[in-house]
Amino acid sequence: MSLLNNTIESIKDSLNENVFEAAIERLANQAKPAGSLGIMEDISARLAAIKGNIDVQLTNKQIVTCAGDHGVVQEGVSLFPSDVTPQMVYNFVNNGASVNVIARHAGAMVTAADLGVNHDFDKNLPIFHKKVRHGTANFTKEPAMTRQEAIRSIEAGIEIVEELCAKQEVDILGTGDMGIGNTTPSSAIIAAFSGFKVEKLTGRGTGIDDTALKNKIKVIEKGLELHNPDPNDPIDVLSKVGGLEIGGLAGLVIGAAAKGIPVICDGLISTAGALIACELAPEAKKYLFASHKSVEIGHTYMHERLGLDPLIDLKFRLGEGTGAAVCMELLDLATRILADIKTFEEVGITDVQ
Amino acid sequence: MSLLNNTIESIKDSLNENVFEAAIERLANQAKPAGSLGIMEDISARLAAIKGNIDVQLTNKQIVTCAGDHGVVQEGVSLFPSDVTPQMVYNFVNNGASVNVIARHAGAMVTAADLGVNHDFDKNLPIFHKKVRHGTANFTKEPAMTRQEAIRSIEAGIEIVEELCAKQEVDILGTGDMGIGNTTPSSAIIAAFSGFKVEKLTGRGTGIDDTALKNKIKVIEKGLELHNPDPNDPIDVLSKVGGLEIGGLAGLVIGAAAKGIPVICDGLISTAGALIACELAPEAKKYLFASHKSVEIGHTYMHERLGLDPLIDLKFRLGEGTGAAVCMELLDLATRILADIKTFEEVGITDVQ
Repeated sequence: MSLLNNTIESIKDSLNENVFEAAIERLANQAKPAGSLGIMEDISARLAAIKGNIDVQLTNKQIVTCAGDHGVVQEGVSLFPSDVTPQMVYNFVNNGASVNVIARHAGAMVTAADLGVNHDFDKNLPIFHKKVRHGTANFTKEPAMTRQEAIRSIEAGIEIVEELCAKQEVDILGTGDMGIGNTTPSSAIIAAFSGFKVEKLTGRGTGIDDTALKNKIKVIEKGLELHNPDPNDPIDVLSKVGGLEIGGLAGLVIGAAAKGIPVICDGLISTAGALIACELAPEAKKYLFASHKSVEIGHTYMHERLGLDPLIDLKFRLGEGTGAAVCMELLDLATRILADIKTFEEVGITDVQ
Repeated sequence: MSLLNNTIESIKDSLNENVFEAAIERLANQAKPAGSLGIMEDISARLAAIKGNIDVQLTNKQIVTCAGDHGVVQEGVSLFPSDVTPQMVYNFVNNGASVNVIARHAGAMVTAADLGVNHDFDKNLPIFHKKVRHGTANFTKEPAMTRQEAIRSIEAGIEIVEELCAKQEVDILGTGDMGIGNTTPSSAIIAAFSGFKVEKLTGRGTGIDDTALKNKIKVIEKGLELHNPDPNDPIDVLSKVGGLEIGGLAGLVIGAAAKGIPVICDGLISTAGALIACELAPEAKKYLFASHKSVEIGHTYMHERLGLDPLIDLKFRLGEGTGAAVCMELLDLATRILADIKTFEEVGITDVQ
């Protein structure tokens, strides 16, 4: 059996129900009105159940930013040229990008991964070298990649999780993306799964104008009509209208879930990857957290399909893992809320209710 | 002239326009799509303008949690009895409360302040001892406090800022509240200013049921009808249907603005205080940030009146400064976003747009 199938098979619902119940009880008895820390309480209980422990320590926080290029950029779907993709990978390595700054604040490490950048990186560059091919094909003309390449990209994501865990215990994983043009395949993916109209799911990406947006919608419609991806076959969707980094992002979610590691996905592209992962392995959702709600309109439909509520809405539309990094701080805080806020009994307030 | 009038007079629009313009330019040139970090960019530029510096360091973060009791609790508006107020003050001092846990995560100090708790604290307890009286009167029968007491409560808040600043440089101030029953005066305050129906502005506080909510609405209506507070006279509103800690919270905002310190307000009660402050001193708004959107329905109307957008909506309904503490981390992050994310030029990406 392949690495992908093996890993999907190994995802178990290992959430600890007893710890979950104990967490709910502790939250209800803390010296505050019941439920008054809202979403943070829900998250803290789910993290406790995942980790099997009330006092969860998210010490080692890792963000992996998967990069890939897109043949469909030839159709004028982005403001930026494709050579920005490798330049941003160097920027991640040099710690100068947005995700580096936000991750540093959150106490998280960022590592870039080359899933399919159209550039040859020096093998000594400290990134995950997982190139499947030099960018996808232009999906208005041919499938973005072959079925084998799609599987390979997901397996590369799984391998990254395994390599990270071989070096150290990973307490939480965040996913991020870099790839000029990659809101286009991401919108195509949610369109393929949901069957909703492309115009309802397509946003301005890096900031294109009305004319370019109309063109982008037509480009996605053309790709979907040409290849007719099967929504019941996530690999088919990924291969026909997806991206190599999106496959990698799906692999990160599957790999993390298989190891019982909570995983937090970023914006439109990371969530497209998470969607591929959860269509392949629905149990992976138990380990998955949605970070922010992007300005990109397709994002909300992805969250609906995943059944996840994003934590924050700061009007981000950047990717890289920036939203995941912000929310990693909030997940870390959630662990403290559950473990450190005292109960009425612990503080000696006994005359309530 | 009184401390209050003097302090209001001394609030200047000291925001540095040149630094603001430089911040906007830097954000636009950073290696990311323009505006793609959304609200965080807006905040970072405003903080830079307040501090007159692109590289803002929010090193010393202080949260002051103002406590007071409420005579109107006699009318059955809260799930909890009034003696929980002093017990929670001790809990703040002992670092076991929700705000302590969240502030610790944010690297902020929390100090409680007694503005009007119905309990005599030992003078050595490390809190701000600013008791104006032992709780307000029941405003369904008489004004909550006298006009002089209302002014005194605001001045106490101003004094707290001065005392904090005498000890050390304060880089950012967060406001929080504790006072059983205090969503009732807070809803009354926004009703008095807005003229909107009380039922539109009144929530469940600590978690009261439908019957108790109907009663709470009637209690607020009764107070407003009995005293007819003048919406053009914020001191009148505060004295007739307000709270002593709400006066203190107004004073914190006025005091911080007078010193050019950014101040972030928490939930319904803190924002009621901020509203009193900004009705008295509209220039104070320039220094004010809204943290979260509370479950309490009156909160949104306060934000609208203040012209401020809250940063997050995590379904909090706790107070204490918990939302302010969460958002202090985000404000701190905003300073890093502006200062530390490199521009396209700095990272050598020159072929964009």
